[in-house]
Amino acid sequence: MKETKIQRGKQSIAFEKTPYVHSYASIVGPKEGEGPLASYFDMITKDFELGQNTWEEAESQLVTFAIKTAIKKGNLKPEQIRYLFAGDLLGQLIGSTFGVKDLNIPVFGLYGACSTMGESLSLASMCISGGFADYATAVTSSHFASAEKQFRFPLEYGNQRPLSATWTVTGSGAVVLSSQESDIKITGITTGTIMDYGIRDSMNMGASMAPAACNVIYQNLTDFDIPVDYYDKIITGDLGYIGQEILFKLLRDNGYEISQVHMDCGIEIYDNEKQDTHSGGSGCGCCASTLCGYIFEQLKRKEWKRILFVPTGALLSTVSFNEGQNIPSIAHGIMFERV
Amino acid sequence: MKETKIQRGKQSIAFEKTPYVHSYASIVGPKEGEGPLASYFDMITKDFELGQNTWEEAESQLVTFAIKTAIKKGNLKPEQIRYLFAGDLLGQLIGSTFGVKDLNIPVFGLYGACSTMGESLSLASMCISGGFADYATAVTSSHFASAEKQFRFPLEYGNQRPLSATWTVTGSGAVVLSSQESDIKITGITTGTIMDYGIRDSMNMGASMAPAACNVIYQNLTDFDIPVDYYDKIITGDLGYIGQEILFKLLRDNGYEISQVHMDCGIEIYDNEKQDTHSGGSGCGCCASTLCGYIFEQLKRKEWKRILFVPTGALLSTVSFNEGQNIPSIAHGIMFERV
Repeated sequence: MKETKIQRGKQSIAFEKTPYVHSYASIVGPKEGEGPLASYFDMITKDFELGQNTWEEAESQLVTFAIKTAIKKGNLKPEQIRYLFAGDLLGQLIGSTFGVKDLNIPVFGLYGACSTMGESLSLASMCISGGFADYATAVTSSHFASAEKQFRFPLEYGNQRPLSATWTVTGSGAVVLSSQESDIKITGITTGTIMDYGIRDSMNMGASMAPAACNVIYQNLTDFDIPVDYYDKIITGDLGYIGQEILFKLLRDNGYEISQVHMDCGIEIYDNEKQDTHSGGSGCGCCASTLCGYIFEQLKRKEWKRILFVPTGALLSTVSFNEGQNIPSIAHGIMFERV
Repeated sequence: MKETKIQRGKQSIAFEKTPYVHSYASIVGPKEGEGPLASYFDMITKDFELGQNTWEEAESQLVTFAIKTAIKKGNLKPEQIRYLFAGDLLGQLIGSTFGVKDLNIPVFGLYGACSTMGESLSLASMCISGGFADYATAVTSSHFASAEKQFRFPLEYGNQRPLSATWTVTGSGAVVLSSQESDIKITGITTGTIMDYGIRDSMNMGASMAPAACNVIYQNLTDFDIPVDYYDKIITGDLGYIGQEILFKLLRDNGYEISQVHMDCGIEIYDNEKQDTHSGGSGCGCCASTLCGYIFEQLKRKEWKRILFVPTGALLSTVSFNEGQNIPSIAHGIMFERV
């Protein structure tokens, strides 16, 4: 890949002027703070409610903390951030809205389910690369309890969770992108189309999302004509154990073997055996907090040189689901490179 | 304003390389088809359900029609559209998701309530201006019945609507933007911050949105240091009669008198006296269908040379509302100019 011009594949762009990761921050809840990635997060909250009256308000607190901390770590002031690209899982994006409204920064609200961190980074990248902002921030969040309330059962009901179910991460991650050089750059993006393989099991999001992850990974590799080992890691958002297995099979059917370089944030964020999280973690906050904790640290330490980060989203709605519709999915890929 | 470089104000951009309106299409339901703008729409549906089983599926049909028609009117094929920027009012954007999923075009899902057409046009403009796509499509939709179900009461309940209430438009509009010259260009955008004046009346969205419209219009005029009569029209999305009055007052307090050039899509789309629509029309589909019907036609006919198009959105959620939160709002401004 040359960087002398904007190079485009079917669904991909290689940036002529690459955006850089200026700063970032992550925050997670107590359960994630007991998991194997604990040491990488900026903040682990002591309680699940963050001192708020509702779970939704708690989620908004995660968003506010992540953005403010990322800005502060970048030695910036909020007024230097030209745009926020923000989204979450909740209807009408209330996690984001109430988390960003007092910052007085122009906002683009985004929804791509758990793929939203990929969407926000993609759009913020275009914005920086196009010269429309000096600094733009991508942020997403999720909260276990607000998500269960939105999508599944009241927590008080105490429903049994099948082994294919994932556990929504309580957490948020924010990334400040800039045109100024730093040690991590975004060389390109691959934007997903909506995939629908007919999945109707809302307790098996991994199966719904695997085709979307396959679409983006396959397209990224073919658009740029690069081998799998071009990347040190190909990192999906929250496929979990079941989704990962399906992804491997789908990519093998398309001529790519990625099992040796694959990592899934949902699998990494919990100790599945000790923490009883079944198929793994999920939610917008899962890959966002893992990116802004563990993943960027590996790039900083030069453990990895190039990664493809692919947040995956199941476009589940209780309304369409109860009306008998399938659960389609989408993914968005970001190419990070250690400078 | 010079167009020799990307000129930036506090919340605004003037594009160096201006995106152009390549083609567009609109579709509305029967009630909108009885209103004063009827002759400008590409399609008026005979029934409210569009032959579907649910209102949500009907809304998705509106989306599909608007996109396909806009692409066809532009003598393009779907595979030539590099990105869709799509959103609607429903939780998890199911109106858009099921409306675009079979088109196989990379999608960015957006949520800005009724301001979403401004958001989608803003991001599609940056995308075209930055050289990331030859063609990108912005689309939004709303449906009276799916919106009432989502935000207010079951239709069967037959609740009485206060005079401050607006009527959600059943409709959709899609715009194909391109870097190729045409007779309408986008010279700049102004991106809104979230405004919260403490409104808690979900039957008075105009009052919630007026401060957001004021923020964007004020900022656009001051960022570029232009007088109100720089524009032939300043067009808000769906403030309705009550919101319009508040907007005028707020802007007067800030030194601008816009009443002589102001138009509101929500006020224009229905004949309020005959159609009993109270404060006016609303919904993502209101300003989108008016833009792709009446407004672009006035620019084509050279009735207007320059307009500021300001879709306005009330960030209403039943969850946050029932938890005692305010209804914040946001708006996004697009500067259209007849070439």
